Amino acid sequence: MTGNIRPSRPRQPERPVRQENLRTLNLELVFRHILAAGQPISRTELATSTGLTRPTITRIAEELLAGQLIAETSLTHNGRAGRPRVGLTLSGRGPAGLGLDIRADALAACVVDLTGTVRHLAFTPSTFAGRSAPDVLTRLAHMARAALDAMAAEDLTVVTATLAVPGPVHDGIARSAPELGWRNVDAGALLRGAIAPLDLPLTVDNQANLAALGELYASDNTLDSFVYVSGGLGIGAGIVVDGQLMRGARGWSGELGHVTVHPDGKPCPCGSRGCLQTYASLQAILSDAPVPGGATPEVTVTEHAEAGSPATLAALDTAGTTLGIALADMLNILDIDTILLGGSFSLLASWLTTNIRAEIAQRVLSTAWAPITIRPALLGPDAAVIGAALTSIDQIRQHPTAWLTRPPSRSPASPA
Amino acid sequence: MTGNIRPSRPRQPERPVRQENLRTLNLELVFRHILAAGQPISRTELATSTGLTRPTITRIAEELLAGQLIAETSLTHNGRAGRPRVGLTLSGRGPAGLGLDIRADALAACVVDLTGTVRHLAFTPSTFAGRSAPDVLTRLAHMARAALDAMAAEDLTVVTATLAVPGPVHDGIARSAPELGWRNVDAGALLRGAIAPLDLPLTVDNQANLAALGELYASDNTLDSFVYVSGGLGIGAGIVVDGQLMRGARGWSGELGHVTVHPDGKPCPCGSRGCLQTYASLQAILSDAPVPGGATPEVTVTEHAEAGSPATLAALDTAGTTLGIALADMLNILDIDTILLGGSFSLLASWLTTNIRAEIAQRVLSTAWAPITIRPALLGPDAAVIGAALTSIDQIRQHPTAWLTRPPSRSPASPA
Repeated sequence: MTGNIRPSRPRQPERPVRQENLRTLNLELVFRHILAAGQPISRTELATSTGLTRPTITRIAEELLAGQLIAETSLTHNGRAGRPRVGLTLSGRGPAGLGLDIRADALAACVVDLTGTVRHLAFTPSTFAGRSAPDVLTRLAHMARAALDAMAAEDLTVVTATLAVPGPVHDGIARSAPELGWRNVDAGALLRGAIAPLDLPLTVDNQANLAALGELYASDNTLDSFVYVSGGLGIGAGIVVDGQLMRGARGWSGELGHVTVHPDGKPCPCGSRGCLQTYASLQAILSDAPVPGGATPEVTVTEHAEAGSPATLAALDTAGTTLGIALADMLNILDIDTILLGGSFSLLASWLTTNIRAEIAQRVLSTAWAPITIRPALLGPDAAVIGAALTSIDQIRQHPTAWLTRPPSRSPASPA
Repeated sequence: MTGNIRPSRPRQPERPVRQENLRTLNLELVFRHILAAGQPISRTELATSTGLTRPTITRIAEELLAGQLIAETSLTHNGRAGRPRVGLTLSGRGPAGLGLDIRADALAACVVDLTGTVRHLAFTPSTFAGRSAPDVLTRLAHMARAALDAMAAEDLTVVTATLAVPGPVHDGIARSAPELGWRNVDAGALLRGAIAPLDLPLTVDNQANLAALGELYASDNTLDSFVYVSGGLGIGAGIVVDGQLMRGARGWSGELGHVTVHPDGKPCPCGSRGCLQTYASLQAILSDAPVPGGATPEVTVTEHAEAGSPATLAALDTAGTTLGIALADMLNILDIDTILLGGSFSLLASWLTTNIRAEIAQRVLSTAWAPITIRPALLGPDAAVIGAALTSIDQIRQHPTAWLTRPPSRSPASPA
């Protein structure tokens, strides 16, 4: 029998290296080696590790130094005679990335430099009940402006910004953020329009995804594949597989809050029934309990639980069990062995983890022969804003020549 | 405030191209261009598209022709005067890949050549009740041997084999295949040991994953991201995102059959309760209905449904609804917009699709602004064995030099 099946999709055929792109490729090669070194590296070591000649390394190093992508530093004297060698390392004075986040209880801004160091982290407590999207984004724009000005005073140039929103994003539009009462909000345009001049390239992205990236960066490469669960008034998840964020076909992956745990269960504002969110969000845990003025839902739940409130403890019991059922579905589908409890769930982990573990042990097929790790996330509520800032600066890390060849007139950090 | 976050995991720094690997890189570059052309391509066109010189193309073409990776063919005369030009295309006489599959009702073997053409497809009806794994794999080994001999007579050399098993696989071990009564079976070793000499490199892989790859190849690049649902006595799924199979952290992704649809529902042999499998597998649909001798569960269900059996129609109703609930969970988690119903579900699609659609419309958040496609798979029950053969030959497509530099003594297709 003979049939016809098309061969596998071929990768895009490449073209051979040519003279005109050789300089760029070698510059990026050297930059990647400095990035990967993780500590100061000498020109001689760079020549050895890249295979490029010493004069080429010298020329490229000059270019990277002039562009403030790298800096010179003394290498540790290695015990031999002679003067200490000079090492090259990432610069803390050149480009930086801005992260912005709209949390349930606060607005946040963060700047990270090329070395991955947090240089600025600010938040303003805020509740969103009854406040319009333009109003919220104007306040956030003022925080962004303050961050840019503070960084300019430290010789850092913020080149790009990333905004985290709690809900799915497509083509820059926040499709649905029930926590904020948003539906199809062009958050980027509102933010840019709110205060002039904020003429930075701006990307709007999902909060759980950015928080997962924050945790990946912060884990010092000990994490590889994991699910970051973002708990709060809504529930989302960021999925990282082999060190890469899994965004899904259209960027809407990780809608854990709308996984069904009881098909005929409680109605959910999304229009379905029995979504995890109706059992395990802060709102569901609080039920009708009032949140005192000045307190957040998260703090209120924690206080009630610590005081031994039977209603709150029962609600946390249900939340843990339903979270376990939904996470078990996720693990059976994705085959991931690590779960990080983030957002409010990191604070509530001690009341949730036992039930989550029990459901996963019962329901995930692979637990019969391989264990699952469940632990609180590291960065707490700052995960998304730090992840957003890191995502912004990562664009320069991946494409340093974009920074070197930027138009000279463009100076986004200049005060208004 | 200043914190310390490690920079993003740098990609493995590359080394510059050197003389010693230049020949290999250029040969693979030319081969990829021939692969991507999809039709015969002349040496002149190759020189233009790769940027390599004509003498280099000529030398590489000789090497590829001598290795039977490509063949010469006449190009369509393009209307100008002179003799028709000679084109280069993939060879149908060189290396080939073997696929083997253990289906619920049959054993199957398939050979695909470098052009992606099915050159051999055989199956032997079989039921596995009461038969040992060595017994089943010995029969399959005889089919593999018959396929190798038939291909040798057509000047094809089978270089590698892939075996599909219905369940999760780790380190070559079939961890759990309840359909076959297997637990921790080293299927590869049994297959290789069953009949000598079957000294091919052999990979054991999950049936749903291989079937998804079969559908990807067969779709002629119209599919990009989709879930392939494999229905039968068990239920599995193969997940393809951006043209790549998503295997999960340890290769156990897609355990759709063990997604929970009713937390306190029917007990499942896996030890959990309310797994999709307990509502939507062929076994669950058949319930206590007897399968006549000679018929398969699949055919029995179809016959009862066509005859209007109220019990079977009610069972299909439940199967469709529960499949819809579990698939909705999967889509909320993965964000994929296309579902292919494969295995037995492709035959039962007309009884299942309405309910699947209704549940997805209610439960998947993104359906509010973007549609989901649900349709039967193209390849029917042969998807996995064809996917397995394509996976085998794909190793040569990706690394043609592995074929060119193989040891001359190794002639896997030589008869025993």
